[in-house]
Amino acid sequence: VKSSGGKLDVAVLAATGMVGQRYVSMLSSHPYFRVTRVTGQSSVGKRYGDSVSGYGLHISDEALDLEVQGTRPESLGEVDLVFSPLPTDIAKTVEPKLARAGFKVITDASPHRMDRHVPLIVPEVNPGHLGVLASQRKDGWKGLLVSTPNCTAAGLALVLKPIHDKLTLRRVIVSTLQAVSGAGYPGVPSLDILDNVIPYIKDEEEKVETEPLKMLGALDGSVVTPARFEISAMVHRVATTDGHLESLYIETEEDFEPEEVARLLSTFKGEPQKLGLPTAPLQPIIVTAAEGRPQPRLDRYAGSVPGMSAVVGRIRRGLDRKSGRLTLLSHNTIRGAAGSTILTAELMYRKGLL
Amino acid sequence: VKSSGGKLDVAVLAATGMVGQRYVSMLSSHPYFRVTRVTGQSSVGKRYGDSVSGYGLHISDEALDLEVQGTRPESLGEVDLVFSPLPTDIAKTVEPKLARAGFKVITDASPHRMDRHVPLIVPEVNPGHLGVLASQRKDGWKGLLVSTPNCTAAGLALVLKPIHDKLTLRRVIVSTLQAVSGAGYPGVPSLDILDNVIPYIKDEEEKVETEPLKMLGALDGSVVTPARFEISAMVHRVATTDGHLESLYIETEEDFEPEEVARLLSTFKGEPQKLGLPTAPLQPIIVTAAEGRPQPRLDRYAGSVPGMSAVVGRIRRGLDRKSGRLTLLSHNTIRGAAGSTILTAELMYRKGLL
Amino acid sequence: VKSSGGKLDVAVLAATGMVGQRYVSMLSSHPYFRVTRVTGQSSVGKRYGDSVSGYGLHISDEALDLEVQGTRPESLGEVDLVFSPLPTDIAKTVEPKLARAGFKVITDASPHRMDRHVPLIVPEVNPGHLGVLASQRKDGWKGLLVSTPNCTAAGLALVLKPIHDKLTLRRVIVSTLQAVSGAGYPGVPSLDILDNVIPYIKDEEEKVETEPLKMLGALDGSVVTPARFEISAMVHRVATTDGHLESLYIETEEDFEPEEVARLLSTFKGEPQKLGLPTAPLQPIIVTAAEGRPQPRLDRYAGSVPGMSAVVGRIRRGLDRKSGRLTLLSHNTIRGAAGSTILTAELMYRKGLL
Amino acid sequence: VKSSGGKLDVAVLAATGMVGQRYVSMLSSHPYFRVTRVTGQSSVGKRYGDSVSGYGLHISDEALDLEVQGTRPESLGEVDLVFSPLPTDIAKTVEPKLARAGFKVITDASPHRMDRHVPLIVPEVNPGHLGVLASQRKDGWKGLLVSTPNCTAAGLALVLKPIHDKLTLRRVIVSTLQAVSGAGYPGVPSLDILDNVIPYIKDEEEKVETEPLKMLGALDGSVVTPARFEISAMVHRVATTDGHLESLYIETEEDFEPEEVARLLSTFKGEPQKLGLPTAPLQPIIVTAAEGRPQPRLDRYAGSVPGMSAVVGRIRRGLDRKSGRLTLLSHNTIRGAAGSTILTAELMYRKGLL
Repeated sequence: VKSSGGKLDVAVLAATGMVGQRYVSMLSSHPYFRVTRVTGQSSVGKRYGDSVSGYGLHISDEALDLEVQGTRPESLGEVDLVFSPLPTDIAKTVEPKLARAGFKVITDASPHRMDRHVPLIVPEVNPGHLGVLASQRKDGWKGLLVSTPNCTAAGLALVLKPIHDKLTLRRVIVSTLQAVSGAGYPGVPSLDILDNVIPYIKDEEEKVETEPLKMLGALDGSVVTPARFEISAMVHRVATTDGHLESLYIETEEDFEPEEVARLLSTFKGEPQKLGLPTAPLQPIIVTAAEGRPQPRLDRYAGSVPGMSAVVGRIRRGLDRKSGRLTLLSHNTIRGAAGSTILTAELMYRKGLL
Repeated sequence: VKSSGGKLDVAVLAATGMVGQRYVSMLSSHPYFRVTRVTGQSSVGKRYGDSVSGYGLHISDEALDLEVQGTRPESLGEVDLVFSPLPTDIAKTVEPKLARAGFKVITDASPHRMDRHVPLIVPEVNPGHLGVLASQRKDGWKGLLVSTPNCTAAGLALVLKPIHDKLTLRRVIVSTLQAVSGAGYPGVPSLDILDNVIPYIKDEEEKVETEPLKMLGALDGSVVTPARFEISAMVHRVATTDGHLESLYIETEEDFEPEEVARLLSTFKGEPQKLGLPTAPLQPIIVTAAEGRPQPRLDRYAGSVPGMSAVVGRIRRGLDRKSGRLTLLSHNTIRGAAGSTILTAELMYRKGLL
Repeated sequence: VKSSGGKLDVAVLAATGMVGQRYVSMLSSHPYFRVTRVTGQSSVGKRYGDSVSGYGLHISDEALDLEVQGTRPESLGEVDLVFSPLPTDIAKTVEPKLARAGFKVITDASPHRMDRHVPLIVPEVNPGHLGVLASQRKDGWKGLLVSTPNCTAAGLALVLKPIHDKLTLRRVIVSTLQAVSGAGYPGVPSLDILDNVIPYIKDEEEKVETEPLKMLGALDGSVVTPARFEISAMVHRVATTDGHLESLYIETEEDFEPEEVARLLSTFKGEPQKLGLPTAPLQPIIVTAAEGRPQPRLDRYAGSVPGMSAVVGRIRRGLDRKSGRLTLLSHNTIRGAAGSTILTAELMYRKGLL
Repeated sequence: VKSSGGKLDVAVLAATGMVGQRYVSMLSSHPYFRVTRVTGQSSVGKRYGDSVSGYGLHISDEALDLEVQGTRPESLGEVDLVFSPLPTDIAKTVEPKLARAGFKVITDASPHRMDRHVPLIVPEVNPGHLGVLASQRKDGWKGLLVSTPNCTAAGLALVLKPIHDKLTLRRVIVSTLQAVSGAGYPGVPSLDILDNVIPYIKDEEEKVETEPLKMLGALDGSVVTPARFEISAMVHRVATTDGHLESLYIETEEDFEPEEVARLLSTFKGEPQKLGLPTAPLQPIIVTAAEGRPQPRLDRYAGSVPGMSAVVGRIRRGLDRKSGRLTLLSHNTIRGAAGSTILTAELMYRKGLL
C-alpha cells in the first residue's frame, strides 16, 4: 500500500504520551513515512496539537492537525505501518491482535520482546534477526510484530556488539544511572528524586540482563540462540531528564588492550550506516577521551543524528588483562525507543519488508 | 593535659569549611571534648559565628564566639587534640609538622592515609590498627597522626568488614553515586551537575580501590599487611547534597547465601558499640528489605546517631553462588569524615591514647 | 472523653499520605494527644507501619502498629479529635458530615476555609476567631469544624499580622517559589520540575489572595469581616522539596522605616507563645540580616520547634516611604499544614474547646 | 577593513568562558562576521578547541583551530569588531582602553552600561540610541563602545517596550527566578542551589531597576533621558540551567485590558525584524495562552532563532483596571548576552557603523 507522495502512511499509537510525541516529532519530515493516524486515550476526538503539552519538540503542522483516534484496529484505517509505544498492559493484548489482523507493528513496549516469534532489533546490532518474522508467517499472522529493546538494553547491546564480534565475552557487570524520562509521564514523582537516587526500577534489571543476549545471539533459520555470556545489572534512577548512563565492567576469555576496545567502538558501522538510512548516525558509537565524559546533559545529543549515537568514555583496564571498564551514555527516548524503532522501520522499508 | 571540666581541649582546623562546621557542630555538647580553637584562612581574626554560613547545623554559642585563628602551631595553644579536615595540599605539609611538634592530630585529609606509619582507622573496622602509632614514636614524633579514610572508602570498608571476617573475598566491583558535599565547598559548580551526572572524580577511584584493603589488612607489630582481595571502582557524581550510594558486586571463594550476608551485616557490632562510645550508633550497619532502598534523602540520617550508620539494601545473589550484590548508603561528611574521626578520637580517649 | 493517661485520643485521616505522616510523626510523643486511629484508602486493614514509605520522619512504635481504617465515622470510634489532611474532593463532603455527627475536626483541606461558619485559624494570628464556632452550634452541629489555611497563606498571614497590627496595609504584591511537597504525593512529576519552574499552581493564587484577609479580619460576635487591604499573588513551583519562599512588596497608608518592620516581626509573640503551647516556637518569626537569606534548605527548620517559625530576610524599602519589601520562608507541611493544625488543637485544648 | 570573503573579522574576548563559547558558536557560520581571534586567560597559547569543555554547542572547525590569545590590544590584530563578555573587573579598564585605541567593542559586561557616553542597546527596543556614539567621537575615541544590558534587564526591556509605546507606565514590580548560567562558570556552587532557592544576586536588583529605564528613555541629540516610571526588583536564583523567568506586576496611568497587552506583545516587531537581520527572530515576543507557561526548560528555545524570543504568558488583570500581571521567559545567555550583542552588531553593520 504505497501512499500518496510515495511515502508510507503510518500510525503512531499512544501518540500523546512522552515517547509518542518523540515519534511524531522525528517523523515530522521523514523521507519514507508520513504520520496519518495518531491514537490516544483521554484525548480521543481532540486535535492532536491540543492534546500534547509539547516538550520543546518540533512537530509538523500536518501532524498537529490530526484528530486523536482510539487505539483500535478500526481507527487505524489502511496504514502501512504502526509504531507502538503503548503501555505494557495494553501492548500485551493489542499488539498481537493488530499483527494477526494484518497490521505491520513495530513496538518499543516490553511484553513480546523475549517471544521467540518476535525479532528484537537494534538495526546496527542484529539486522539479520528480522528473519525471525518467517515464524510469524508460519503461525498465520497476516501482519507482523517487531520489537525494540528496553531503553537501557538498547545502548548496552549497541556498545557490546563490536566487542562481542571480536572478543569472547564472559561477564558484563553493569551499573546504570537512568533518567526520569525512562519512566514515561507522569512517571517518577519529584518528591522521590529531588536530592535523591533510587537504586531500583521495577522489572528493569531482568530486561537488561536478558535482552542483549537475545540480540547478540545467533540466528539459525528463524530461531535465535542467545549469546552465552552473562550480564549482571544494578540499576539506579537519578535526577536527569534524558540520557541513560551505564558503567560497565567487562570480562572476556582473551587478554585485550583498552585501546583495542576504543578502536573497535569508534570504527564500528552497522548496516544502517552502510545503507545510509535517514535516521542512521554517521557514527553509531562516539568514543571520547575527554576527562569525565560522557555526561547526560552535554553528550546526549552528540553526533550527526541527535540522540542516535551512544557516547563512550573512560575506557580502561579492569583488574586484570582479561577485563575492562567503560562508561556509556545513550539517549533513552531516542536511541532507546522512538529513534531505534524508526531506524528499524527504515531498514525494513529498504529491505522490502513493509 | 586535662582541661577544666574534665573535658579535653580540642582544635578544629579549617573549621570554617563545610566539614569543619560538621566537626564543630558534632562537638558542640560532647562529653569528652570541648572545642577551644578553630582555625581558618580568609576569616582569621573574625568571630567564628560570623565566618560560617551555617548549613542548618546546630553549633554551641561557646563555639560561635571563638575567634578564628590561623592554621599554625603557635595559634593552637595547648590543645589536647587536633581535628584536621584541611585541604589536601595544606594537610600534606602541615599535619606531619604538627605531629612532630607534639600535637595529636586526627585527620580526614588524604595525603598520609597510605603512609605505613599512619594508622587508617574506621573504629568498627580496625581499632587494633592504632598499634601502628608505635612506629611514629620510633621515628621520634612527639605527637601523633591518625587518619580517617576517604568518604567512599569509609562506608565500603565498614560494610565489607563483617563479610571479610566470615568469607574469603576475591573481588569487589563497586559503582558509586556520590553527593556534591563530598567535593567540599564551593566544590562542584551547579552548571556541572544540574540535569547531569559526572562519571569521574579526580583521584577518587584509586583511594576507593586501596584504602579498604589497608583497613581490612592484618596488623603484625606495627606493620599492616593489606587484605589480598581486589577492588574495582567506577565513581559518579550525582545531584544529591549528602549521602554516598555504592552498588557492589562481590565475589568470594566460597558459596554463600544472600540471607547470610544480610544477617552478618545486621548483627555486626564493633568495638565502639561494645565500649558504648558517645558517637557510636547502636547498629553500625542497618539492613533494609524495603523495595528501592537505601535512598540518600530518606536514609542518610537513619539510626541512633544520625549519619553514623550505613544502610544496606537490595542484598541478592550475583551471577553464581559465589557472588552477591548489594547497595549501601553512607553519609559522606559524617560517617565519611567528621563522625568517623570523632569516633576514632573517642576510642583513643578511652584507650588512653590521648 | 478523656482517654487513659490523661491524653486525648485523636484520629488522623489520610494518615498514609505525605502530610498525614507529618501529623502522626509530630504527635508521636505529644503531651496532650495520642494517635489511636489512622485512616487511609488503599491500605485499609494493613499495619500503618507497612503502609508508609517514611520520609525520614520519626514515628512512634505505638502508631506504627495501628491498623489502617477506612475514612468513615464508624471507623473512628470514640476519638476526642480528628485531624484531617483529606484530599479536597473527599474533604468537601466528609468533613461537615463528621462535624455534624459529633466529631471535632480540624482540617487543612481547602473546601471549607472560606465558609462563614468555619473559623480559619493560625493560632498566632487570630486565636479569637474560634468564636466563629458559636455559629456552628447555632446550626445544630454536635461536633465542630476548624480550618487551617493554605500552606502559602499560613506563612503570609503570620508575617503580615504584626505589620497589620501597627500599620494600615493597602496592598501586598506577593510572588512565591513553592516546594513540590506542597502538591502532596505523587504530586508534581519530576519531568515537570527538573531544570524547570512552573509559574502556575491550580487555584493557589485565589487562596493566597483571600485567606489572609479572612484571618486578619475583625470578629464581631461570630462573624468575621475580612481585612480591607488587597493581595496580588503570582505563584511558582520550583525544584525544592520543602519550604515555601514568598517575596513581598508591601504598600501602606503611612510612611514607615524598614527597621521598624524588622523590629515588629522579630519581637512578635502570639497567644501560643504566651500560653507556652507545646508546638509553639519561642519566636514565631525569625528575622535575619544575613545576605541572601532566608533559603529553603538552610532555614526551613530554624527555631525552637523545627518548621514552625517563619524566617524573614531582605527587609528593605520599596519605591517610596510608604512601601517595603521582604522575603519570607515558611515550612509548607509543618507551619503550612500539620504543625499549624496541631497548634490550633493545643490552643483549643487549653481553652477547653475539646 | 573588509576581510576576505566579504565578512568582517571579529575577536571574541574571554572566549573560553561560558558566554564566550555561546558567541563563538553563534558566529560559527554567520553571514556578516567571521571569528579570527579568541582570547582567554589560563589557556593562552593553546588551541581553542582544547580549551573549551563544550556545552553541547556547535562550534566551527575553523574556530576550534584558533590559538587562544591574551586579552591585550596587541593580540587582537586588525579585527573589525570585538565582542566582549569580559568579567566585570577586567572589562572596566580594558574596554575603554580598546575603544580609545580604535577598536569597535560591543560588550555585555556591566561596568559601562550606565555611562552617558555609552549606548545601552537591545536592537528591538532602542536602535536609535546608537546616536549616543556621537559623544564618544567628541571625546576623541578612535573606536567605539556599545553595551548590551544585564541578562534580566534585556528580557524585561524587550517586553516592556510595546507596552511603554502605548501606555504610560507608572510602576513595574518584578520578581525573578534566574538560571545558574547567569552567574557564569563556575558560578553558583551546587551545594548552594540543590533543593534550594537564593533570594539574592549581588548587584542584580540595581541593574534591573535602572537599565530598562535608560533603554526606554528618549534620545535628544546624543543624550538619553531615562524613562520616568519606576521598577522594583526582587531577584531569586533557582536550580535551572538556562532561562530567566520574570513575573511582573505592572501599573499604568490609564485603564487597559489584558487582551490589549497580549495583542501589543504578540504583534510587536522591531527594526531587526524589519531589516531581516540574521539573528532576528520573526517574533521577538511570543505570547502563549497555555496553562502554566512559559517554563524555562520547555520554552527557552522557542521561536525561529532559538533563544532570541521572549515568551510571555499568564497575562491577566492586576488589582484594578490600571494594573496587570504577566510572566516572561528570556534566555539569559542568548537574548540576555551573546545573541543580543550579535544582533546589535548586525544592526550596526547594516547601518554602516562598523
